Amino acid sequence: MLEVSAEFAAEIQTAIDMKTKPPGSLGRIEELAAQIAGLKGSVKPQLETCHHVIFAADHGIASEGVSAFPQAVTQQMVLNFLNNGAAANVFANRLDVPVTVVDAGVAGDPIVAPGLVSKRMGAGTDSYLSGPAMSAETLAATLAAGAEIAAASDADAMSFGEMGIGNTATATMLIHKLTGVDLATLTGRGTGLDDEGVARKLAILEKAAARTSDLSVDEILAEYGGFEILMMAGAMIKAAEMRKVVLVDGFIATSAALVALTKAPHIRPAMIFAHLSEEAGHIATLNHLDAKPVLNLGLRLGEGTGALLVWPLVRAAADMLNNMATFADAGISGKDD
Amino acid sequence: MLEVSAEFAAEIQTAIDMKTKPPGSLGRIEELAAQIAGLKGSVKPQLETCHHVIFAADHGIASEGVSAFPQAVTQQMVLNFLNNGAAANVFANRLDVPVTVVDAGVAGDPIVAPGLVSKRMGAGTDSYLSGPAMSAETLAATLAAGAEIAAASDADAMSFGEMGIGNTATATMLIHKLTGVDLATLTGRGTGLDDEGVARKLAILEKAAARTSDLSVDEILAEYGGFEILMMAGAMIKAAEMRKVVLVDGFIATSAALVALTKAPHIRPAMIFAHLSEEAGHIATLNHLDAKPVLNLGLRLGEGTGALLVWPLVRAAADMLNNMATFADAGISGKDD
Repeated sequence: MLEVSAEFAAEIQTAIDMKTKPPGSLGRIEELAAQIAGLKGSVKPQLETCHHVIFAADHGIASEGVSAFPQAVTQQMVLNFLNNGAAANVFANRLDVPVTVVDAGVAGDPIVAPGLVSKRMGAGTDSYLSGPAMSAETLAATLAAGAEIAAASDADAMSFGEMGIGNTATATMLIHKLTGVDLATLTGRGTGLDDEGVARKLAILEKAAARTSDLSVDEILAEYGGFEILMMAGAMIKAAEMRKVVLVDGFIATSAALVALTKAPHIRPAMIFAHLSEEAGHIATLNHLDAKPVLNLGLRLGEGTGALLVWPLVRAAADMLNNMATFADAGISGKDD
Repeated sequence: MLEVSAEFAAEIQTAIDMKTKPPGSLGRIEELAAQIAGLKGSVKPQLETCHHVIFAADHGIASEGVSAFPQAVTQQMVLNFLNNGAAANVFANRLDVPVTVVDAGVAGDPIVAPGLVSKRMGAGTDSYLSGPAMSAETLAATLAAGAEIAAASDADAMSFGEMGIGNTATATMLIHKLTGVDLATLTGRGTGLDDEGVARKLAILEKAAARTSDLSVDEILAEYGGFEILMMAGAMIKAAEMRKVVLVDGFIATSAALVALTKAPHIRPAMIFAHLSEEAGHIATLNHLDAKPVLNLGLRLGEGTGALLVWPLVRAAADMLNNMATFADAGISGKDD
């Protein structure tokens, strides 16, 4: 349903080639412009506003020692987001992008703070080392909560971020189970594990992976999911179906995109993969999705920071279509005239 | 004089590492932040405003057939810039970056149009196939005019663009003569030559190169220079000496940066290389300068479009230093706490 007819694709290409520049000379920006025009169904696509949503949650697996930071940091960072102090806030503020912070299931008592959106699915997931992370019912509720959040936004684009100590481990497990790419390829340093830490993380994930086999997609998500990842996937599907541009951040967000595309392959035309993360497993996951990231800045922070950094470039692509003169407008001689 | 003491470099790194993120997790953005802080001499560097200057000029060599577009396009594009219709205008407008358009020596009668800054050094250069492009006096005047333009700006950063049919040929010649990289490596498609066109361009440049040997730097610049490239080089030197961030665009702008760095090596700390162009010779030139571009978007338009696209990322780096909370501010546990 988001697919573009050959006829409209040709119309879009003509609109791009009529602009006062050598054909193709804006490279990736032209590709983004074509994608946006196709998604929005217009050669003058409206792309003024972006809405950033950060999903935060904790992971039972964190208690096994898969992260360089203590679990308390998830809650501390939620408060930092609400106080406008994190990198994602700083980048979003400059771009006039509003930030919504969602408690998808942070460990400990519920956070009471002005501005926080509570969609708590629990005080963190259960550890998937010994059993399922969540029930089938909780999985469904998590995906639905994400869809609700996207449905409530009137922005032309949405960018998604996450916070959750241990969530590179969870993303790694989901990607492994959904794609078959082996854990050794996918397992990386997260926020800063040393070699020994990565080896320990891999051993834990190998053990957790061996616990199950022949699962359905929904069984994989309930067995190994994280609340913030799955809620983001639900939001991505809904946002895309509303023809919003979906800005996919780094490794964790790409695991959410993989979940979303596994459940709803038709939403692919809405997705722009913002950047190539430093996290080891990102490139393999992007390759699996045949996705070409726009930026390569060695980022590995999360919070949707890469998605925010790509937003001005994505908007520039739409601006090109909306505001650049054509050769005819400007009375300019074409190539080889 | 723009160099940073080891002591201050350490202070900058501490300021970056105290921010609420895993150390190094903002990758290239952190490197840019360190560079900006060093240039501005502050761990809270002011980087609010950017000023975009487009230098336009024509090239005698264009009459030999080195471009896919007719020479009239230079003047037509100057009017397009002044009418706010070009890609550079569209990108700059969105970012509230003012654009100054400079006639550095466009062919034909002087352009009379509101807003145009006239620094005409002639109606295009002479063809360097048969003799020098300009005199030693004109070279000096061209560099000085660029310096004047930078001196008149109060922006925290400057981005530079160019327009000039035939100017990839001129940039290629300058780079060849200044670095010794061979012409076959450096010569590319410009705005869209086919294989035959590239071969013709290369043959013309080989012939023009063979005309001289053992030139001083200033002799190279006068023999083979283009007014827009040399005026940009003059502007870059002055802007850098004023501790403005200098955003270097693609192939042509990098040839101007090479000229600037050859004459004034001490200004290097001010330069940020925005992107890797599709133009064949760009990567060799960047490697010669040991410069690592921020973006790789397949651009080959010029006008400073890549420099404008990188500006939000560069500003984000400064914003990180100015506006992000520290671990202490936010009461957040550090790594392995």
